[in-house]
Amino acid sequence: MTQPSPSRLDRQMDFLMEIDRLKSVHRATKLADGTRRENSAEHSWHVALFALTLAEHAPQGIDRARVIEMLLLHDLVEIDAGDAPVYGNHDASAVAEAERKAADRIFGLLPEDQGAHFRAIWEEFEAMQTPEARFAKSLDRFAPPNMNIANGGGSWAEYNVDFGTFQANVGMKILQGAPALWEWIAPRAKAVIDRLREGPKP
Amino acid sequence: MTQPSPSRLDRQMDFLMEIDRLKSVHRATKLADGTRRENSAEHSWHVALFALTLAEHAPQGIDRARVIEMLLLHDLVEIDAGDAPVYGNHDASAVAEAERKAADRIFGLLPEDQGAHFRAIWEEFEAMQTPEARFAKSLDRFAPPNMNIANGGGSWAEYNVDFGTFQANVGMKILQGAPALWEWIAPRAKAVIDRLREGPKP
Repeated sequence: MTQPSPSRLDRQMDFLMEIDRLKSVHRATKLADGTRRENSAEHSWHVALFALTLAEHAPQGIDRARVIEMLLLHDLVEIDAGDAPVYGNHDASAVAEAERKAADRIFGLLPEDQGAHFRAIWEEFEAMQTPEARFAKSLDRFAPPNMNIANGGGSWAEYNVDFGTFQANVGMKILQGAPALWEWIAPRAKAVIDRLREGPKP
Repeated sequence: MTQPSPSRLDRQMDFLMEIDRLKSVHRATKLADGTRRENSAEHSWHVALFALTLAEHAPQGIDRARVIEMLLLHDLVEIDAGDAPVYGNHDASAVAEAERKAADRIFGLLPEDQGAHFRAIWEEFEAMQTPEARFAKSLDRFAPPNMNIANGGGSWAEYNVDFGTFQANVGMKILQGAPALWEWIAPRAKAVIDRLREGPKP
């Protein structure tokens, strides 16, 4: 809380204007009304609201503010590395390497102490070793199926996803961080996925 | 942290899916790259990041987590009431009435205790009587001029804004909550506004 030097604020502003580009990174998931794909900035806002609203479904004693910080920061690396859709085929180690380089550049815009702090929050999220990170990751996985249910299929239709794939790629992470949310979504997701797969093929 | 009943989670999910509509509410401000207007959901994410990054410019002892909660929630009423651009001509009491009705409906989707809690956070933001609310409001006013500077004029050009109007409508609120940020932006904004007004009229 010391008075910052002008150059410290300059660097913070460089970072804040650079991250505006996250508003132009698009995801596989569509809006609830199905009109367009969502971008990673508005998704980050939405999952932060999930954290605020669903905090009571987290393990007791969790640091709610850090969960929200994680979710606000979690997709910044996509400015350089792009979004890797959860049902897509990716070289996981290539994605991880691209995201590490992105983190170097983007968090590197900040004053050194602050860049290291934000990067540690992002790394905590990715590592999923703390209750906060597991809960944050479960919300990041929980939001998109709710969008798919609302818009009648979304990325499940696009990637021709069956319930087993949904369970493996998405359900496991929801279950690890927020069992009550998995219990809530599983039957709802199954009903939509089964209906999509029984329907006429395009 | 008690185990919620299913109907409590149902109501929370109704709220979370309804607020997806904030991604379709557009603002006068354009993205930093000028390609399109920003929406109120991605703006809310961006100002929450301003709060996280610029926390050291807030008054000492401020509750940073509540500032971020305010900024995540502050525009939800626009789902029904729309965005009222800061340089537009509005009937302030009509806007306030529309926003109160919107708050009734939107926060009313939640379980009663939680709806009352979120609404109190929004009302605290609007009233600007606490240091947290003043700092949050200053960031909400500080972000858009930075976008205008980045994209070469933005809403200043559109509304033909002079520096006095900028000071009165925007500067005063930045100054009240975060004097260091006003000091930083004032000369930068003046340079762009003066250049716009000296330039050829369209």
